[in-house]
Amino acid sequence: MTSNAVAIYDTTLRDGAQGAGLAFTLRDKLRITAMLDRMGVDYIEAGDPFSNPKDAEYFREVKRPEHAKLVAFGSTCRAGHKPEEDEGLRALAEAGADAVCIFGKSWSLHATAVLGITPEENVELIRSSVAWLKEQGLEVIFDAEHFFDGWKNDRSYALGVVRTALEAGADCITLCDTNGGAFPQDVEAAVAEVFENLGKSVRLGIHAHNDCGMAEANAVLAVQNGVRVVQCTLNGWGERCGNTNLFTVAANLTLKMGFDTLPDGTFRSLTRYANEFCELCNREQYVHAPYVGPAAFSHKAGMHINAVEKLPQTFEHVRPEQVGAQRRFLVSEYVGRSAVWSRAREVEPWLKRDSEEIGKIAAEIKKLEYEGYQFEGAEASFALLVKRACGTFHPHFRLIGFNVTIAEPGVDGEVASAVVRIEVGGVEEVGGAVGNGPVNALDRAMRRAIEKFYPQLADMRLEDYRVRVLGTGEASASIVRVIMESSDRSGRWATVGVSADIVGASWSALVDALEYKLMRDGAQYV
Amino acid sequence: MTSNAVAIYDTTLRDGAQGAGLAFTLRDKLRITAMLDRMGVDYIEAGDPFSNPKDAEYFREVKRPEHAKLVAFGSTCRAGHKPEEDEGLRALAEAGADAVCIFGKSWSLHATAVLGITPEENVELIRSSVAWLKEQGLEVIFDAEHFFDGWKNDRSYALGVVRTALEAGADCITLCDTNGGAFPQDVEAAVAEVFENLGKSVRLGIHAHNDCGMAEANAVLAVQNGVRVVQCTLNGWGERCGNTNLFTVAANLTLKMGFDTLPDGTFRSLTRYANEFCELCNREQYVHAPYVGPAAFSHKAGMHINAVEKLPQTFEHVRPEQVGAQRRFLVSEYVGRSAVWSRAREVEPWLKRDSEEIGKIAAEIKKLEYEGYQFEGAEASFALLVKRACGTFHPHFRLIGFNVTIAEPGVDGEVASAVVRIEVGGVEEVGGAVGNGPVNALDRAMRRAIEKFYPQLADMRLEDYRVRVLGTGEASASIVRVIMESSDRSGRWATVGVSADIVGASWSALVDALEYKLMRDGAQYV
Repeated sequence: MTSNAVAIYDTTLRDGAQGAGLAFTLRDKLRITAMLDRMGVDYIEAGDPFSNPKDAEYFREVKRPEHAKLVAFGSTCRAGHKPEEDEGLRALAEAGADAVCIFGKSWSLHATAVLGITPEENVELIRSSVAWLKEQGLEVIFDAEHFFDGWKNDRSYALGVVRTALEAGADCITLCDTNGGAFPQDVEAAVAEVFENLGKSVRLGIHAHNDCGMAEANAVLAVQNGVRVVQCTLNGWGERCGNTNLFTVAANLTLKMGFDTLPDGTFRSLTRYANEFCELCNREQYVHAPYVGPAAFSHKAGMHINAVEKLPQTFEHVRPEQVGAQRRFLVSEYVGRSAVWSRAREVEPWLKRDSEEIGKIAAEIKKLEYEGYQFEGAEASFALLVKRACGTFHPHFRLIGFNVTIAEPGVDGEVASAVVRIEVGGVEEVGGAVGNGPVNALDRAMRRAIEKFYPQLADMRLEDYRVRVLGTGEASASIVRVIMESSDRSGRWATVGVSADIVGASWSALVDALEYKLMRDGAQYV
Repeated sequence: MTSNAVAIYDTTLRDGAQGAGLAFTLRDKLRITAMLDRMGVDYIEAGDPFSNPKDAEYFREVKRPEHAKLVAFGSTCRAGHKPEEDEGLRALAEAGADAVCIFGKSWSLHATAVLGITPEENVELIRSSVAWLKEQGLEVIFDAEHFFDGWKNDRSYALGVVRTALEAGADCITLCDTNGGAFPQDVEAAVAEVFENLGKSVRLGIHAHNDCGMAEANAVLAVQNGVRVVQCTLNGWGERCGNTNLFTVAANLTLKMGFDTLPDGTFRSLTRYANEFCELCNREQYVHAPYVGPAAFSHKAGMHINAVEKLPQTFEHVRPEQVGAQRRFLVSEYVGRSAVWSRAREVEPWLKRDSEEIGKIAAEIKKLEYEGYQFEGAEASFALLVKRACGTFHPHFRLIGFNVTIAEPGVDGEVASAVVRIEVGGVEEVGGAVGNGPVNALDRAMRRAIEKFYPQLADMRLEDYRVRVLGTGEASASIVRVIMESSDRSGRWATVGVSADIVGASWSALVDALEYKLMRDGAQYV
């Protein structure tokens, strides 16, 4: 009987690094290695010590993982070279890795059109390279590059290549869908044929790409058909459309199908690991990523929210806590009374499901979203809306007026100037400032005026600022929505403003951001 | 024999709108409808006229698509109601759509735990609702919600539900993986059993979600097993982890498997349609999206680039031109040059591949894109850049200065005023105007000044105006990119402007838009 254990073979540092927009420093690579080891992956494919100085330095510097096997990656020896004389192969053998992985062509077209050698010479390169690496006492993985295309094109050649690698001593044969063009039925048929030809006991791996959106399905189907090593990358980021996503495939195999992959504790922190990797790459997680994406357990339709409140499994295929994620109910015009209540009572805990304020809040959301507001992702403005509807909102300042002037771009970049007049507790104050744009000038002027009364605003920062033009009619007269994210030592909050005018929309979002902080802090003016 | 035609059923406006971060205005919905119709999709599921005022207004305002059938979406009638007395069903029947789609529970757990009715009452609701809608003379699609979960849980109940809908007259039964937890083998087995039970001639649809990363695989496998309607959304954006991606599934089915879906011309523009949708949503395409993502045909590994230069099929499963995409080599200077040449000679046909201007243009693009410009989707600004680099650009006016003033929102909405001073042929002219925002006021003031010299500008309109804030730091001081689309009787063109200041960025884009039209018309001042 085939074992239930499936090895997770991570290639983020090699195939992942070939993805658009990713560029790891040596320090990044060392940090990712340590994270993968903490997660409990089985193999970490780290790069080619012969191909570039960064990877060579990596192998000198890396701290040996506690759990995972470190893999050095490279190609078979070059045509016309003996393995023992090939610098690339020697660098692999001398890298100090636990295992080496070499790729070789299993599509005869590649041998002739790319390498310019005969199909027979290609087979001999593979045989001699694998055999020599085995003589060096290493675990050897053979990546059969373009296996599925080769198999479709010339079955006996592709099968001959993997048989050669196996007979030369390879410990594992990876069937690679290098171009990402294979479909599940190709994978099923090819895997079955390989087992038929090489025997049930051969250890097979799968390396899938996502060019047809099949990277997850092909990996899972390969495992269901007996493959026991899955190559994948963190978040699925990699060359072209990326690779099988480690988080998705491990969760599918273990949480849904009962295979052993990563330790239990890793699953309960899966979302945190995914976020850690995003932070390290300084890149946003894909909002719709399975299991670990920010929307994976976000419900927006009112009927879905009602049902999930009654019984989560009605609209969730796994529980969010199984992958360390949080359920979110998004506030929108699609939402019903019970979703509004579940969010509103976080602001005003005395609210009941049938309080009349809930109806007022729901109606207000519908009206404002129709005008262009969006409260999803603007929780602070939502909290203020709730308090205004409940009559529990007490403003901390009053605007008397503002004026902003902008001139054509000049030399010093401070094209805008603003004056803001406010009143706090009967005392009027004026702030003035320049800025490199009207919103920047207005923000600075407002702070000058208001910090006199509320010095705690000095530690508040604007973190992000997003603008969406919601067209209608004469385009430059469209409706504008601004979402602003602010932070201080205690956290982050987001506010929204809508106006025909970008300055007006920014002003509303800024006022909400200031009011929210002052309310949360229970601020009194000085 | 089953036909080779597979209907593309788009639900962007309904299930897509339930996706995190998406909030369509009425105007967005009308524009998306028009785009989907141009693409040649078969069904456009547009929303529920009963659930919210925006969707109700949509059905009153929408222009009937030329090719696609417009679908109104809703639920079966409420428990305890007769169909003819149910406001929701009546709103569906009266929406003026070509077809209606109603969903009903096929998992008995949902009937008892969510609706609070018996499984038998649930079946009766479905029967009576479908039958009544058919009596109104409409094409009726029945979405069997949670079909795969229901089928795993209680096969005979789930099959009974779809049989009831079919016998009540439903024209199509959609098998829905509402929670996204199904795997390909579930889909294969369930679809086979439905055909066995209901007969080979029943018209089946598939509605998949991506919570396990299986939305594409499940759709393709359903079609290979006889399903002929595929529900999907643009870019796969939708509830939680999203839906089957229209672009991916159509390309898989037609380009890789030989099914008929969209017209040939749509595939050759597929990437442009995807980009148009992203722009409309003001949201970035996922970098690794299959077929239409920015990295789908990007090659980074040196060995891949060498091979693709010899023979593209060595690392590309389809040709980029089949989906209107461009191959990109992320590290090759030479190919950067030839791509620039192929675009630049559309503007200046005398340019040769080795003209020194090509190097200048390439360097200028690199520099400006680094600063935040984006010339993809701003062809008019690209044309002006080429002419400036070639020394063939002759400006039609010169800015002397402008000044814009904005006050806090008042009663009449005209919060901004602008004065623009320009010079044409040695003659100075000043234009002044008010507007509901700084860009609107500046646009109007500029037109007052310049139309004196170039009366043909009177027929130029601003069609669209999009703002993206790039990068952070002090957020309200971020870099801003504006893309502006203009039109006149002869066509549309897009320009880009970048500045620390939204008014400055808008000004650049506006100047390019005016200059482009004047250049294209060969205008002389009067």
